[in-house]
Amino acid sequence: MTSSTRERTVFIVSDGTGITAETFSHSVLSQFEQVSFRTIRLPFIDSREKLIESVERINRNAVETGDAPLVFSTLVDPEMAEILRGANATFLDLFGTFVKPLEEALGMKSSHSVGRSHAGGSTKQYRDRIEAINFSLSHDDGQFIHDLAKADVILVGVSRCGKTPTSLYLAMQYAIKAANFPLIPEDFERGSLPSTLAPFRAKLFGLSIQPERLSEVRNERRPDSKYASLAQCRYEVAEAERLMRMEGIPFLSTTTRSIEEISTKVLQEVGLDGHKY
Amino acid sequence: MTSSTRERTVFIVSDGTGITAETFSHSVLSQFEQVSFRTIRLPFIDSREKLIESVERINRNAVETGDAPLVFSTLVDPEMAEILRGANATFLDLFGTFVKPLEEALGMKSSHSVGRSHAGGSTKQYRDRIEAINFSLSHDDGQFIHDLAKADVILVGVSRCGKTPTSLYLAMQYAIKAANFPLIPEDFERGSLPSTLAPFRAKLFGLSIQPERLSEVRNERRPDSKYASLAQCRYEVAEAERLMRMEGIPFLSTTTRSIEEISTKVLQEVGLDGHKY
Repeated sequence: MTSSTRERTVFIVSDGTGITAETFSHSVLSQFEQVSFRTIRLPFIDSREKLIESVERINRNAVETGDAPLVFSTLVDPEMAEILRGANATFLDLFGTFVKPLEEALGMKSSHSVGRSHAGGSTKQYRDRIEAINFSLSHDDGQFIHDLAKADVILVGVSRCGKTPTSLYLAMQYAIKAANFPLIPEDFERGSLPSTLAPFRAKLFGLSIQPERLSEVRNERRPDSKYASLAQCRYEVAEAERLMRMEGIPFLSTTTRSIEEISTKVLQEVGLDGHKY
Repeated sequence: MTSSTRERTVFIVSDGTGITAETFSHSVLSQFEQVSFRTIRLPFIDSREKLIESVERINRNAVETGDAPLVFSTLVDPEMAEILRGANATFLDLFGTFVKPLEEALGMKSSHSVGRSHAGGSTKQYRDRIEAINFSLSHDDGQFIHDLAKADVILVGVSRCGKTPTSLYLAMQYAIKAANFPLIPEDFERGSLPSTLAPFRAKLFGLSIQPERLSEVRNERRPDSKYASLAQCRYEVAEAERLMRMEGIPFLSTTTRSIEEISTKVLQEVGLDGHKY
């Protein structure tokens, strides 16, 4: 096989979870569409013994596939990184590459200490996160209207437009207390927001969706129901958007956006970016 | 001010959400403990106009703080990255740094296309993720025992040991269908697993926690209750661990671990790493 082989193995080697490096590698590698990548994450490589095993595994893979694998490393210890560099692979040193220019810019040495990237068990950051997740869970789909005053943001929109995953992501990633509340045909007939939401106008943010896509999503849940019919979806989406415009609630379409993209837009629009994180 | 100033501004500039770059920057910067960093994320910088605004904002910040900010860029377009490099800042080119060695290793040019990193709206990957989130939500805390056969993993453990956030994270990040099921005093008195779980032994994974920490967590929920008392927490944790050992269910302690760390360990132990992602 040659270097133009269309399948390549990617190793993520980290002394922590390696999740960030893995996500980053997906993002960079998505620039090489013709290649299909198989990712193997090797987390918690925090001893020489585990490192040697990893190097052996990488070298075996090179022999078996006939191609040097790609290795993304976030090993913090420079000596460990040097050992990994010796593997039969294209070595991409995520951590080391940026530590040196940062040391120069900041005029100090880095601490080279392992395991600092995630806030574990008993830190305030961890507790805030868990509290936000619990809040978002208990305030999902308007099921609990108590304590809405404590919400950082309240997402509104028709059933199945993407409110729940967005609320949970905001809580998980940013410790943001995100409630969500459905807009339903009753609200459209009345022509106004649910009275529960009236005091919290400033915290409301709307999600909308293409009726065709909504009908697909609802059909997976309740096939061939009126609820899932294109006519019903068109009616609800049009009415929800009319209501949100009338009430001055900013909204965006979730149709072609990922959960991360929707969440980022929400943070920008609600002015929460930079406040809590 | 000099380069040893103890507060520094960090800009994350991305044509996408910038979330991965932000998480990565936290991780690298945690190596400089003496400095306090203020992070400003500038997402969706996908036009020259927005880029110029960003450069101006960075330059203003340099003047106002008397220090050149740190800029982490994941701009895919090399021309855009070059413009950003001109800002009065320490420029860290996350994307560009790795694209060149990857092009060499893969023997091809990258596509330099913006917005490929997240799977949006209608892709299979997106639908799998949403399905997993819905599954984990509806199978939270043993509330829905139907369809447990479809679970990739079923987390068990005493109330408030960390099952819910872990289940949701696994679903959100890896599209893994993670159910969770509480172990309660009734199970300990009977001395066996809930019968609902018996057919799914191979999918079970246990979470445990230090009784002192559990008591703290429960006290936030129900202050001064028997449920939150240290004696009760000690009893439940000891019994749950005894039951899990007896039944041969692997388990780990959540006490000092982050959600990411727990999730990674679960994936390793259950053998799901590399299967679905």
